[in-house]
Amino acid sequence: MQDDSIFDFDELNEECGVFGIVGHPDAARLTYYGLHALQHRGQESAGIVTTNGEKFHVHRDMGLVNEVFSSERVSQLIGSTAIGHVRYSTTGSSVLANVQPLVFNYAKGEIAIATNGNLVNGDKLRKELEANGSIFQTTTDTEVIAHLIARSSADTLEVAVKETLNELVGAYALLILTNDQLFVAQDPHALRPLAIGKLGDSYVFASETCAFDTIGAAFIREIEPGELLVLTQNDGMRVTRFSEPKETSICSFEYIYFARPDSDISGINVHTARKRLGRQLSKEAFVEADVITGVPDSSTSAAIGFAEATGIPYELGLIKNRYVGRTFIQPSQELREQGVKMKLSAVRKVVEGKRVVMIDDSIVRGTTSRRIVNLLREAGAKEVHVRISSPPVKNPCFYGIDTADRDQLIASNHSVEEIRQLINADSLAFLSAEGMVEAIGRPSEEKNRGHCLACFTSEYPTKLYEALEVEESV
Amino acid sequence: MQDDSIFDFDELNEECGVFGIVGHPDAARLTYYGLHALQHRGQESAGIVTTNGEKFHVHRDMGLVNEVFSSERVSQLIGSTAIGHVRYSTTGSSVLANVQPLVFNYAKGEIAIATNGNLVNGDKLRKELEANGSIFQTTTDTEVIAHLIARSSADTLEVAVKETLNELVGAYALLILTNDQLFVAQDPHALRPLAIGKLGDSYVFASETCAFDTIGAAFIREIEPGELLVLTQNDGMRVTRFSEPKETSICSFEYIYFARPDSDISGINVHTARKRLGRQLSKEAFVEADVITGVPDSSTSAAIGFAEATGIPYELGLIKNRYVGRTFIQPSQELREQGVKMKLSAVRKVVEGKRVVMIDDSIVRGTTSRRIVNLLREAGAKEVHVRISSPPVKNPCFYGIDTADRDQLIASNHSVEEIRQLINADSLAFLSAEGMVEAIGRPSEEKNRGHCLACFTSEYPTKLYEALEVEESV
Amino acid sequence: MQDDSIFDFDELNEECGVFGIVGHPDAARLTYYGLHALQHRGQESAGIVTTNGEKFHVHRDMGLVNEVFSSERVSQLIGSTAIGHVRYSTTGSSVLANVQPLVFNYAKGEIAIATNGNLVNGDKLRKELEANGSIFQTTTDTEVIAHLIARSSADTLEVAVKETLNELVGAYALLILTNDQLFVAQDPHALRPLAIGKLGDSYVFASETCAFDTIGAAFIREIEPGELLVLTQNDGMRVTRFSEPKETSICSFEYIYFARPDSDISGINVHTARKRLGRQLSKEAFVEADVITGVPDSSTSAAIGFAEATGIPYELGLIKNRYVGRTFIQPSQELREQGVKMKLSAVRKVVEGKRVVMIDDSIVRGTTSRRIVNLLREAGAKEVHVRISSPPVKNPCFYGIDTADRDQLIASNHSVEEIRQLINADSLAFLSAEGMVEAIGRPSEEKNRGHCLACFTSEYPTKLYEALEVEESV
Amino acid sequence: MQDDSIFDFDELNEECGVFGIVGHPDAARLTYYGLHALQHRGQESAGIVTTNGEKFHVHRDMGLVNEVFSSERVSQLIGSTAIGHVRYSTTGSSVLANVQPLVFNYAKGEIAIATNGNLVNGDKLRKELEANGSIFQTTTDTEVIAHLIARSSADTLEVAVKETLNELVGAYALLILTNDQLFVAQDPHALRPLAIGKLGDSYVFASETCAFDTIGAAFIREIEPGELLVLTQNDGMRVTRFSEPKETSICSFEYIYFARPDSDISGINVHTARKRLGRQLSKEAFVEADVITGVPDSSTSAAIGFAEATGIPYELGLIKNRYVGRTFIQPSQELREQGVKMKLSAVRKVVEGKRVVMIDDSIVRGTTSRRIVNLLREAGAKEVHVRISSPPVKNPCFYGIDTADRDQLIASNHSVEEIRQLINADSLAFLSAEGMVEAIGRPSEEKNRGHCLACFTSEYPTKLYEALEVEESV
Repeated sequence: MQDDSIFDFDELNEECGVFGIVGHPDAARLTYYGLHALQHRGQESAGIVTTNGEKFHVHRDMGLVNEVFSSERVSQLIGSTAIGHVRYSTTGSSVLANVQPLVFNYAKGEIAIATNGNLVNGDKLRKELEANGSIFQTTTDTEVIAHLIARSSADTLEVAVKETLNELVGAYALLILTNDQLFVAQDPHALRPLAIGKLGDSYVFASETCAFDTIGAAFIREIEPGELLVLTQNDGMRVTRFSEPKETSICSFEYIYFARPDSDISGINVHTARKRLGRQLSKEAFVEADVITGVPDSSTSAAIGFAEATGIPYELGLIKNRYVGRTFIQPSQELREQGVKMKLSAVRKVVEGKRVVMIDDSIVRGTTSRRIVNLLREAGAKEVHVRISSPPVKNPCFYGIDTADRDQLIASNHSVEEIRQLINADSLAFLSAEGMVEAIGRPSEEKNRGHCLACFTSEYPTKLYEALEVEESV
Repeated sequence: MQDDSIFDFDELNEECGVFGIVGHPDAARLTYYGLHALQHRGQESAGIVTTNGEKFHVHRDMGLVNEVFSSERVSQLIGSTAIGHVRYSTTGSSVLANVQPLVFNYAKGEIAIATNGNLVNGDKLRKELEANGSIFQTTTDTEVIAHLIARSSADTLEVAVKETLNELVGAYALLILTNDQLFVAQDPHALRPLAIGKLGDSYVFASETCAFDTIGAAFIREIEPGELLVLTQNDGMRVTRFSEPKETSICSFEYIYFARPDSDISGINVHTARKRLGRQLSKEAFVEADVITGVPDSSTSAAIGFAEATGIPYELGLIKNRYVGRTFIQPSQELREQGVKMKLSAVRKVVEGKRVVMIDDSIVRGTTSRRIVNLLREAGAKEVHVRISSPPVKNPCFYGIDTADRDQLIASNHSVEEIRQLINADSLAFLSAEGMVEAIGRPSEEKNRGHCLACFTSEYPTKLYEALEVEESV
Repeated sequence: MQDDSIFDFDELNEECGVFGIVGHPDAARLTYYGLHALQHRGQESAGIVTTNGEKFHVHRDMGLVNEVFSSERVSQLIGSTAIGHVRYSTTGSSVLANVQPLVFNYAKGEIAIATNGNLVNGDKLRKELEANGSIFQTTTDTEVIAHLIARSSADTLEVAVKETLNELVGAYALLILTNDQLFVAQDPHALRPLAIGKLGDSYVFASETCAFDTIGAAFIREIEPGELLVLTQNDGMRVTRFSEPKETSICSFEYIYFARPDSDISGINVHTARKRLGRQLSKEAFVEADVITGVPDSSTSAAIGFAEATGIPYELGLIKNRYVGRTFIQPSQELREQGVKMKLSAVRKVVEGKRVVMIDDSIVRGTTSRRIVNLLREAGAKEVHVRISSPPVKNPCFYGIDTADRDQLIASNHSVEEIRQLINADSLAFLSAEGMVEAIGRPSEEKNRGHCLACFTSEYPTKLYEALEVEESV
Repeated sequence: MQDDSIFDFDELNEECGVFGIVGHPDAARLTYYGLHALQHRGQESAGIVTTNGEKFHVHRDMGLVNEVFSSERVSQLIGSTAIGHVRYSTTGSSVLANVQPLVFNYAKGEIAIATNGNLVNGDKLRKELEANGSIFQTTTDTEVIAHLIARSSADTLEVAVKETLNELVGAYALLILTNDQLFVAQDPHALRPLAIGKLGDSYVFASETCAFDTIGAAFIREIEPGELLVLTQNDGMRVTRFSEPKETSICSFEYIYFARPDSDISGINVHTARKRLGRQLSKEAFVEADVITGVPDSSTSAAIGFAEATGIPYELGLIKNRYVGRTFIQPSQELREQGVKMKLSAVRKVVEGKRVVMIDDSIVRGTTSRRIVNLLREAGAKEVHVRISSPPVKNPCFYGIDTADRDQLIASNHSVEEIRQLINADSLAFLSAEGMVEAIGRPSEEKNRGHCLACFTSEYPTKLYEALEVEESV
């Protein structure tokens, strides 16, 4: 299962999770449980905004969902419509002011916005707004969106929202709440997942379907690229569009790493997809070995798939301490050198004298991989063969994943053989992009079967801008 | 991996973990890391006592290791010898006063005691002491031990400790610290694990070997039944005995459930033993099925073993939310009935329409098993076959495991077929005691190969007492 | 001394305190001490913003200064220029978002604003801004000011600030910080106090001079109505004006109640002024009595003055519990009726059988006065004569004091005799407005000697607006 | 009023406060309010133990009463009999284990003890007990008392308590709670105050009468030296004795400094007594001056008395910041030298150019006095005449006041003239012991009118012991 990167060896910073529900007497509490199911998508902060049709009730703070919300806090969030957010900072630094949903007053009343994704033209829009006298209290794209809506001269909020969405370029799965309406939007490429469910008569929305399972809601469908849903408590859900859909480009890392294994994306279960990634990897890069082990928790499914396909036994060669929390005392360099290790242990009896295949989902900077390979060697592994269930990450992501700059991406500057040496592996192989797309098995007829592969191939689905283009051209 | 039962579906309450180190400049910090590795053995409270040879430094509180200890707190614990404790209440209620190590002053100075295990004659000794004017501030057996030592008329502490240990009946792995000595003792049956390691020139002691791996220490051997080790900072470790060893009777549940999969007990890796339990279970109780799944995390290894032996694929059919913490808001009965579930989800795409084998490590009361079977059925499982990697638990434990009273033990009052019906399974099988002992594979020539099987067979390795005997005879 | 109204019987809600310092290596720490000295002006939240010339460092939170700031937090606030704020909510509800100084980004960079006072046209300006597309994240006047500055088309920030200030009507003592400048402004009536001091080469600014004493700074002068001071780290302080001064109208309650007794306002020590108020009150409304007592702490000085002038002994007839804090458990109605009282006690031995003069600084709603009179009666006072060291409060304040609406002001609807009956006093007298102005003794030649007397006389120094005018005309 | 010494300039560490109530449905809540009224007697920790006749309910922790107890905590303390304690460590270091009431189990059940005072033979008794095999978990005298009771061979607890009390030498006001009885005892010299009150049908006990006023209870009488009261819920209060009364020797500092001004001791109001101390001081040591000021808060009453007697005006020449709390950031030495001062300010306008009489209650080490004199001089005082409303403290207290060792007592080693020079005063005078006793005006015919004057005269009312005697003889 996905785990929290702040506690973890994992090198990919996760993004955000959004949740919304319309017309349920327990709106806040269900949002709490929904956010809890999405906790793996962001552990930095959490927030819920509810409306009882007259005014907002808001609680937001830094921390995990169950740290931010007490039972008392949740019960103060009255009203039958709610939106919520868990956040791992993508744009915006880790400060309280940035905690979503953001809440604003504008000429027509209160408005709250929660987004998942990242705008490519966020800085550009921000500069334009500032040049026209706007002030900003956060560093989030979400505040840019609020300004655009407020500055619209459109007669209705719905038109203002549509105008605004057409100015945005990038990834956004978006919830906009007022005291009488909830708007739900998906960018024209559907770069981030967003699903529609139903719980009794109430519509619910979530970044992942596991949130529906947690609250007992039924999955209806995914929101389509360019769609804008308009919900009111009385009139149900009306489906409109603000844009023609462009080629669907769901982030591949949702399958590879981000999403919970029990979520489905476009009808494909994530655990099952990962097992197929492992199988495919075993076909593309088989190696004789005694033991298969996965880097917990995100690579467990791929490791099982690899093991099943090859008949090599799957073992718990690496164990993660479940109790590593935010406030943990880091070992000093000296203690580290003496062998103190807090998060991950290699299991000597499992790997000693063995040829080990270590399955991981990705290599970003390479430092973690080397550390894990060395853990296995210190525990007596005779050989360590690293197999990665995705292609080399060569290009930065501008849509919400904090993969680091290009020059920090080990695969951007090094051949596979060079990486192998750097991480001290006996052999190393990545999955091919084609193999990955094939293994995930999306039914789409679109290019790349509806995947965004930009970080692997540099084919970005949207236009890029200024600084980014410059960076891109380097 | 074992997880914390207070957060969890698990029905067996775990016991305690102890850690000690002699003669290391970073004694407190290493104890912190050692306790952290033993966190799965007790999440209720944590404590460390250090000595610099002149006086004790103490910090203890309710909570997880990383909640109880800040970096500042640890750095205040000066001195090169330390003992530490994590606690899940076995005897004694969950109150601050009971947090170990307990610290006392007696005629010869300061003394601190940390124990794992439970005395069968603890209440009897306490009553005798009270009759002689003793006062008690805790409800722990540990305070009984302190009184016995302080009341001894022996000339030296070592003799007083030996006299005291000979009065105790039950399970105890014991650390006793003064400003110039550390005593380490194991009960004559070695009911609870306790290992000796070395880190440079420093001896270390821990309930499980995973603590040694975490701090980079080497495993030396296990302490033998009836041994008393005497350590001083200058003279190293002297091995003595307070009792002839009696038949070794290590708690079987250490292998089945308690210990971390990366720990070794008597040279046998726990994960590997669990895989063999799964294999043996598949031999004793094979069933045609499409999918094997384990109840996370403690049954994962057995499930893998079952899958490997049968060729039926191992899948993540059940997913546990990693973020369920102590302060979590429980769903109301109403929400629960609407389907809100916080800790464990069944993965529909994995189990829908499938014949599922659900591997669990044990059944205590049966309520959890029924809940999980129903989760799988609601997610569409066509058949649910429950396989338990241990024999039926029919008798209470008096040595430190809180299995509940006999009349709450479902297997004490019901046949396997009755239990199957109660938990709503299509079939149910337990592992045989012989098969379990064989699969774990301890090298011992002793009866039961050195296992305590009392909860399965009612053959208690020690004498029982009064109320307990009464209860026993019911 | 003034005490915190949230802990207290006092009925006048206090306003805010501001502090600023330019060019001192310990800017944050001195601001911390300065705010601490101003704590009596606002206990709800505290914040500090520093700049090192390149970027802001910010920490703000709900709570007292020493709750909000740890040593570590303060040391992270690097830079040699700082502004700080303590807040009692006047406009804006008690929420985190409203905690000042507010920090914004606008076209020319970062800007932070801290204000004391209240705008009369704040709502009007906010509506105009919203109509032009502005969004608001707080309910403070301060955000209105930020928008006006950001929307200005002026070439320099200084001109933009001047334009903005000329749009504001009401009370404001104002600090505006950017990365290279600090602006300090006083409204044209100087309704709220703001003093200039010097600490070595550094200019400091504070709502009260007691903050200068606390940090060892020397008082220079008060900022004049309509002045705008422009400070840079290198070029010192430049004095400009944004408006001709209008008639000075310092809030009378600063002398009567708000300010700390050791502060000076316009060269007049507050404790000394209060003693004179007490003397004057004894002349205007002498009464034969045995004992003088003041309602602690704000009426102590006036009571001493009354006692000195009359020769009647001053006694501690009322004692306040110093430890009543925010989290205090309120007595239930039942316990209250049984006589449980937490904040204030009458001293039986002092008042029993005595004719008591109880001096208080003001009567707002009257409920507190009645409770205190009854405390004295229950403790055996034979007669209770209430003497108030200010005139009856008949009109609401629009400049930052939360006196409640007009219909809650007991003196707005009742004669002195009626109030006397309502508060159960044997006699009651208020100080005359003339007597008060005379006793305070400001040297000014202006009308009312430079006081705002609006709450007594309804002569508001500024234009009022819309809703307010309506309310006014009732 | 007394304030908390941990926040404060005050040099005398305060002792403890005890509270008890029998047979009231709101026992815990009333104890909470009672302890709150006694908070000035100890700010380090607080605890309450209740019984419902069957078992104890306990909550204790470090911190102020309102920090230790939430509403929820208090409501969990069920039962109609309660005892409580606030503590400033006298014996025993500041650790959680020492927080009173201490709770023990012994042969006859549960027992809880709360004490105010200090035993002279506490260490001796502890050593004797340890020699007989007792173990100690705290460093308090209270645990010694518990051991003695538990070791008694008496048939009834009442006899055991009486035997035990007869072994104690020193000061103790004592509450002992079991599930069916409350014992209340006063040492034979009545060194510490303890009063009996009544609230409806319930008896209440408190260190000071202000606790009765707070909860609406009526004062009945003080407990007499050597008395033992035995209370049961049904049979009311039975008065017995464990010892003939010896000469009453109430600690003089209770009048001078410790007690709240609204408390009465032996029928004498503390504020009134302090005023008389000030009057007497003005007779013994008049000085021409312009202004009288007291060191807040404990010297306010004496200063008022001095002012009334001399006609010199009483002014607030020194102001204390009410918000200085435990977590306050101390100014660095550098900032201190620049003039940063957090707790106390001198009011320039009040003292500038004036001859100031500064009244303080005592001088212990002298460092604080010098600091305050210098504050006044820096604020422009022309002359500073220090007048102390008690005699010079020359001898350590062994009964519970932490006055420091003899060699730290400035009056033990220096003449009044030397002290004057050391504290930089223009003149200095102490009150005579005779004048003090006369001014307080206890009605007693006993020696010293029932005062303990040991710290002034070295006439200790009880036998002293060993180490103490040695120290004494130096």
